[in-house]
Amino acid sequence: MPAAGQVIQMQIEVLRLSHRLPRDERISTHVALVARAFGASKIFYSGQHDSGLEKSVQRICDRWGADASPHGSFSISYEKRPIPLIREKKKSGFSIVHLTMYGIPVQESFKKLRKLKKILLVVGSEHVPGEVYSLADFNMSVTSQPHSEVAALAIALDRIFDGKELENIFNGKVHIEPQECGKKVVKKE
Amino acid sequence: MPAAGQVIQMQIEVLRLSHRLPRDERISTHVALVARAFGASKIFYSGQHDSGLEKSVQRICDRWGADASPHGSFSISYEKRPIPLIREKKKSGFSIVHLTMYGIPVQESFKKLRKLKKILLVVGSEHVPGEVYSLADFNMSVTSQPHSEVAALAIALDRIFDGKELENIFNGKVHIEPQECGKKVVKKE
Repeated sequence: MPAAGQVIQMQIEVLRLSHRLPRDERISTHVALVARAFGASKIFYSGQHDSGLEKSVQRICDRWGADASPHGSFSISYEKRPIPLIREKKKSGFSIVHLTMYGIPVQESFKKLRKLKKILLVVGSEHVPGEVYSLADFNMSVTSQPHSEVAALAIALDRIFDGKELENIFNGKVHIEPQECGKKVVKKE
Repeated sequence: MPAAGQVIQMQIEVLRLSHRLPRDERISTHVALVARAFGASKIFYSGQHDSGLEKSVQRICDRWGADASPHGSFSISYEKRPIPLIREKKKSGFSIVHLTMYGIPVQESFKKLRKLKKILLVVGSEHVPGEVYSLADFNMSVTSQPHSEVAALAIALDRIFDGKELENIFNGKVHIEPQECGKKVVKKE
């Protein structure tokens, strides 16, 4: 098992489908921040363009930095046409993992995913086009109960990275020193 | 390791602090649905009373049921005064676990938590009163990066239940039969 802060070799990108304003403003922000905090290197989003979402994520990246892996940057990018993006990613060697409550449970799928080098994790919204299901190499569920794409993404990344993402070290202007009680935020010299 | 659907003996309840309308409408719904889907038996929320939130959660419970454990019901309840609730829960044998990015990492804490019988998981909002930190038996972080209380709750429950919560069987009017591609929802006869 790699030591704390050791490099994770897998490259994971996230595609958030059908962002709607104002409804998804905060949920999509949470999806993006989970993608970053749990070791993904990029998020694309489709639906409505939202410069507020992009700025929120950029602000966090500026202050809190990126993790120290080879793919240790994080960016957000709007994608008007998500289906062609999925096709293009497939062509360039990404496996497509679509998170859906209708799919095969993560606990049955994650071992196969750990062998992959590049994954595009597709996170749905209310109505996901049927084409996404058929383009996906894996339709994967995190419980078959209704809950949250934010939680589903976190658990999926956690299983794929085998919990090692929790040890990622970030190179931000600030970092937290964990405390039993209270808060300690340290600024870089 | 218990088999699929086997009873989880630990009782976990969740307290969501400082719900604000309309800002937290969907985030708090996601927090509540994650609590339910990942094996907690109850959620309290403080802040602004929100009958819409309560109805959304109740609708999901009515349709999708509860899990088959001894604490296998799920309910949502408004709590005007969260600090007295925390004190009362402590008195009745609950350990208080406060999820905060400033706390001790979950990967260092979860083994202690698995020995407990009753846990109140406190999920913060923008400004958490200092008293919550001092009342907590554990201030616990899920990464020390900014992301999402929805994801933090999911990972905390997943670590405490050792992934077994993903095997919970629910007794709803409908359930999903996992598919490699497409959707299959089955209605109870």
